[in-house]
Amino acid sequence: MFRAGLKRTVMQLYVTNVKDVKEVKLKREGAKGVSVKYLLHKGVGAKRLELRLFTIEVGGYTPLERHEHEHEIFILRGKVLVRGGDTEAIVKAGDVIFVPSNETHQFRNIGEEKAEFLCTKQTFEE
Amino acid sequence: MFRAGLKRTVMQLYVTNVKDVKEVKLKREGAKGVSVKYLLHKGVGAKRLELRLFTIEVGGYTPLERHEHEHEIFILRGKVLVRGGDTEAIVKAGDVIFVPSNETHQFRNIGEEKAEFLCTKQTFEE
Repeated sequence: MFRAGLKRTVMQLYVTNVKDVKEVKLKREGAKGVSVKYLLHKGVGAKRLELRLFTIEVGGYTPLERHEHEHEIFILRGKVLVRGGDTEAIVKAGDVIFVPSNETHQFRNIGEEKAEFLCTKQTFEE
Repeated sequence: MFRAGLKRTVMQLYVTNVKDVKEVKLKREGAKGVSVKYLLHKGVGAKRLELRLFTIEVGGYTPLERHEHEHEIFILRGKVLVRGGDTEAIVKAGDVIFVPSNETHQFRNIGEEKAEFLCTKQTFEE
């Protein structure tokens, strides 16, 4: 078993905690007040999927985007307006969202506290 | 946008809540006190990934198993002994686990309350 920070030489069980993962600002155009923790990714052996924790400040939003990979999302905290294609929904803790391949989507914190959600991203082996 | 229970004809944004998803007992050999909610799956348009919520009763455990697909896990509640290959770790809320392809693994509730975790499973388009 490897805790974060240890060099990995063999593909084994990997364990970390959200508190131990560095948070980075999402600097992409069209983003405001969004930070990301890359919890699981290729660097720790996850070849097919990234698991990320997104935090959006009050009034912040992710870029409006569209891409081939799907998203599976689990809301941990806050009140988020999610836009998908021509429709939208207000989501809160315990809500689960699926964004299909090539669907335009955006997440906007419309609440009065930070919003947090888990979001998957498929990665494909080369 | 589709809420659970509506028939879907077009691949669109899908939203549900953990409270609205039916819980089923995991009846597999080697499992004790395990229930699963299939939050996202092919039935709602997720072609590449299942997102499941597992609940393990006090003293319960998942089957010891090994398979090709990876798992990405996020612990929501409880105290779980996770075994992976020859190693093991005790995990709690906020811990994140990666189980590599073909790694033997098992989850055991060693705490004094129900344990809950999210767990991904890759599915592949045919």
